[in-house]
Amino acid sequence: MTEYTAPLRDMHFILRELAGLDAVTALPGCEEATPDVVEAILDEAGKFAAGVLAPINDAGDQQGCRLEADGRVTSPEGWKEAWQQYVEAGWIGLSLPVEYGGQGLPKLVSTPVWEMWFSTNMAFTMLPQLNVSQAEALRIAASDSLKQTWLHKVVSGEWGSTMNLTEPQAGSDLAATRARAEPAADGSYRVFGQKIFISWGEHELTENIVHLVLARLPDAPAGVKGLSLFLVPKYLLDADGNPGAKNDVRCISIEHKMGIHGSPTCTMSYGDAGGAVGYLVGEANRGLETMFIMMNEARFGVGVQGAGLAERAYQMALAYARERVQGRDAITGEAGKPILCHPDVKRMLLSLRARVMAMRALLYTAAAWFDTAHHHPDAAVAGKAQRYVDLLMPVAKGWCTETGQQACWDAIQVFGGMGFVEETGIAQLARDSRIITIYEGTTGIQANDLVGRKILREGGETLRELIADLRATISELRAQPGFGPIVDGLAENVGALNEATHWLLAAGKERYAEALAAAVPFLHLLGTVCGSWQMARLALAARRRLAAGEGDSAYHASLIDLTCFWMASFAPQAAAHLRTVQSAGAPLAAFDDTAF
Amino acid sequence: MTEYTAPLRDMHFILRELAGLDAVTALPGCEEATPDVVEAILDEAGKFAAGVLAPINDAGDQQGCRLEADGRVTSPEGWKEAWQQYVEAGWIGLSLPVEYGGQGLPKLVSTPVWEMWFSTNMAFTMLPQLNVSQAEALRIAASDSLKQTWLHKVVSGEWGSTMNLTEPQAGSDLAATRARAEPAADGSYRVFGQKIFISWGEHELTENIVHLVLARLPDAPAGVKGLSLFLVPKYLLDADGNPGAKNDVRCISIEHKMGIHGSPTCTMSYGDAGGAVGYLVGEANRGLETMFIMMNEARFGVGVQGAGLAERAYQMALAYARERVQGRDAITGEAGKPILCHPDVKRMLLSLRARVMAMRALLYTAAAWFDTAHHHPDAAVAGKAQRYVDLLMPVAKGWCTETGQQACWDAIQVFGGMGFVEETGIAQLARDSRIITIYEGTTGIQANDLVGRKILREGGETLRELIADLRATISELRAQPGFGPIVDGLAENVGALNEATHWLLAAGKERYAEALAAAVPFLHLLGTVCGSWQMARLALAARRRLAAGEGDSAYHASLIDLTCFWMASFAPQAAAHLRTVQSAGAPLAAFDDTAF
Repeated sequence: MTEYTAPLRDMHFILRELAGLDAVTALPGCEEATPDVVEAILDEAGKFAAGVLAPINDAGDQQGCRLEADGRVTSPEGWKEAWQQYVEAGWIGLSLPVEYGGQGLPKLVSTPVWEMWFSTNMAFTMLPQLNVSQAEALRIAASDSLKQTWLHKVVSGEWGSTMNLTEPQAGSDLAATRARAEPAADGSYRVFGQKIFISWGEHELTENIVHLVLARLPDAPAGVKGLSLFLVPKYLLDADGNPGAKNDVRCISIEHKMGIHGSPTCTMSYGDAGGAVGYLVGEANRGLETMFIMMNEARFGVGVQGAGLAERAYQMALAYARERVQGRDAITGEAGKPILCHPDVKRMLLSLRARVMAMRALLYTAAAWFDTAHHHPDAAVAGKAQRYVDLLMPVAKGWCTETGQQACWDAIQVFGGMGFVEETGIAQLARDSRIITIYEGTTGIQANDLVGRKILREGGETLRELIADLRATISELRAQPGFGPIVDGLAENVGALNEATHWLLAAGKERYAEALAAAVPFLHLLGTVCGSWQMARLALAARRRLAAGEGDSAYHASLIDLTCFWMASFAPQAAAHLRTVQSAGAPLAAFDDTAF
Repeated sequence: MTEYTAPLRDMHFILRELAGLDAVTALPGCEEATPDVVEAILDEAGKFAAGVLAPINDAGDQQGCRLEADGRVTSPEGWKEAWQQYVEAGWIGLSLPVEYGGQGLPKLVSTPVWEMWFSTNMAFTMLPQLNVSQAEALRIAASDSLKQTWLHKVVSGEWGSTMNLTEPQAGSDLAATRARAEPAADGSYRVFGQKIFISWGEHELTENIVHLVLARLPDAPAGVKGLSLFLVPKYLLDADGNPGAKNDVRCISIEHKMGIHGSPTCTMSYGDAGGAVGYLVGEANRGLETMFIMMNEARFGVGVQGAGLAERAYQMALAYARERVQGRDAITGEAGKPILCHPDVKRMLLSLRARVMAMRALLYTAAAWFDTAHHHPDAAVAGKAQRYVDLLMPVAKGWCTETGQQACWDAIQVFGGMGFVEETGIAQLARDSRIITIYEGTTGIQANDLVGRKILREGGETLRELIADLRATISELRAQPGFGPIVDGLAENVGALNEATHWLLAAGKERYAEALAAAVPFLHLLGTVCGSWQMARLALAARRRLAAGEGDSAYHASLIDLTCFWMASFAPQAAAHLRTVQSAGAPLAAFDDTAF
């Protein structure tokens, strides 16, 4: 399998030139993220990803996890040792508060680091990702006493984390949740019920596991407004705060999945022997709000998975295309050259690279908005950043997962028959990637969120603000000689977005079913336009560096070529999506369900 | 897993209304294919597919094949019995000559039958598919004596077939073939060398296996013009023509693949113990021509795999969407309804159904051209049909595999988390499907064939003929009230094809590397336009039936809705592909390979 090389040059370029690392470092509370520190962190993370996580990734796929008769879940060889190293290096706390043992760095700095973890071992990285998002939920919603008891060890990674939402009858629809909790005399609760699809629900990598579980209190209202959140540990703590007696929770089966075999997906049973001891997190009946802190945190991370997996697929495909000799150069007739010389193979590789860069630029830029929203002293600036985060979170999740997954699937093609054979590793990437458009809310759920809550509810206000910013980028582009194809590509995209927005706002009032049918195509449209926007910004930044005579001019020139390639190969999708948005709903509504 | 139901209504509609079954039956040599016979065959095939092949498909995936220490390759449970039934029913010979034990039916009749086999068990069906294409190659190229000895048992399925082209250094580039053959005193040859990726290279389903092997004779010219074709049996025949002594050929390993686990993919070693006895098929040094008879036959079949797998994915997704209850109706707020009521789920299902129908219509229509080319007494009519077959074979293979594979991948999404779990069967379909854009020539190879041999070589003549036919369909559409969206969709598509053709003919002369970089996008464009054409013809046929007051009017109305949905959801891709064709080549050429 190809070795992983952290794409540090691309990462630093985007951090500095597109996401505005300097501006983030200047924010109050972000001063630690100096250029030197960021460089050192990315270097170390790259080494850890390549040296520790990548080498155990295929063992994860091949060995997977096993549920033993005694209820233990085994992990693949080397995973426990890797977890120890990961915990000792303090990686989980990178962006978590110093107060609880973290390092308090901006999200902009942690995002490329997570990208590296996902590139090299997604199944493994799902565990620390759960810790981080759970820590965020506990920090915001839990009582001080719960925080003092649980949060430090979640931040350190001594204990693992899970999120328990899904039940057999309650997937996307959490209103159907049946798990229940009863108050106990000591102020704690007893939790009962079955939860499915619980990632890392049971394992031996940590000495305890902290489950966050959605359940109903007695007499709770029906629907999602009757859900409360409970912290249910695998082991209860003894008087010294150490894991003691086993709680009444167990893993009763693990799923046989298409990918991420190294990550056990568990069916968890709570309260088979009298009730699992749980502690209420936040207010009663407001559990879903807290769970959504965790969920939103995780959704952005899943978007980063899209970029990370695609980067790894790109690296693997590129290495193969440089090494595999086959056929003759179609133009010169020369033999003995690697397949990268074939125009179609080069096209496939550029298609991978362009998508990776577009996703990465969007995700890092969004991470910077996140930091700005949380730290900027000017409320107007912070407010705008927060609006962009809110609007584009479903795009970061929905579009980056769809795009990243497709890139992994496409990358197999570069390998020809060898891609279908498991030994190359590219098939595993594609299989692993298939979950990312599903978990933490499917693309359909993201699109409903985008269209319903993020656009229609506010009459498209933030989207119009975004369109104005896009037009400002077009003006900047026009000032650059030779940027015609980039101007045209982005201008056509913005026109399509504008038209689709008008359609959506009208349909939202008059033909809501059509608006919902158009939601996923609209999400793809907005994602494509955001990708074009970021690629245009990439070209502008590259041109600035070229004009200033700074750095590697061949690299900077290639970024402009890559942007032109994007405008030819991906930007035209926006117009196609516009047509679908506008025209698919009517025949869809007319089509009788019995005629399928 | 969902039971398979042969889509007989759709099949018959397309056979009669689009592919012109009556006209095919009227051809000399095709008279046997009366409506009653065709109906009986499709009924029986549907029962066999659902009753015999579908039930053993997941055992194929889960158990796979195993190479034993003694060199035998085991098959999954029930496969040998299924093969016996398949052979006894005489399915292999359906379209093969009566002279050799076949039934001599038109390709138009066998195509839907193969579609059913592929829908229900692609890994299994690869074996009879090899028999059919090998039979065709032997029929055309082998000497009478070879035919008498081998052909009947290949047609009956008593013996299995393989095609041996690939070697580690010779994949898409067969010029690099190293396997060699030496003449022996008795007029036979001794074959030496290693072949990889040999589907069904070794197994116990048949009592003998007939390998066709590309190898070089001593002093053969270099390159593909020095390849000869040899028939190398697993067992040599005794004096009675029965399998006797083991030949010097063995399977030395089988691949661990992403899908089609039930089909052993073998590395075959010839001549380790003095030389495998082989018989020259056809003339020396013209082996590739003969192998391409087999290959072209197989390529069309692989296109049918795309439609077959997508049909099965559609059926599974539809059954799940009708059964799974989740969430509330977004419009009425009603609970307890299946997810098919969600507009986005319906959109996904229509997307599957539309693609299946477009592929099926194109493939059956192509099968009818094939029959017309072979049987029509008017040379002008036969000639045109042959030109269409030649032009569109790479589209039938390339576009139907890309489209069918994508449909299987997309279908997982309908299942949400359950799609990622192997038990539902949809994940297997997607994994199985990943090979179809690769084997028998990758999409890139198909696109090069299309652009180079099929378009540029003849200056786009047949393509212009096709465009004229497309325009005739547009005229027919204009006469239909309410067909505005269909007219617009197809007209825009034909405009895009016309423009792309002009571009291609110019680029082929001046900028050949750009033409090659545009080849796959051009193939997608032409495939999309052909899909739109067939969907438009589907709508026209449905309208005819509606106007005549014949048959199920709800069904016929749904076909028109489906066509409108296609025009909104898939037809717009053509314009996007046109932009890629025209504009991606320049930045691709400019991008320096070292900048990846």
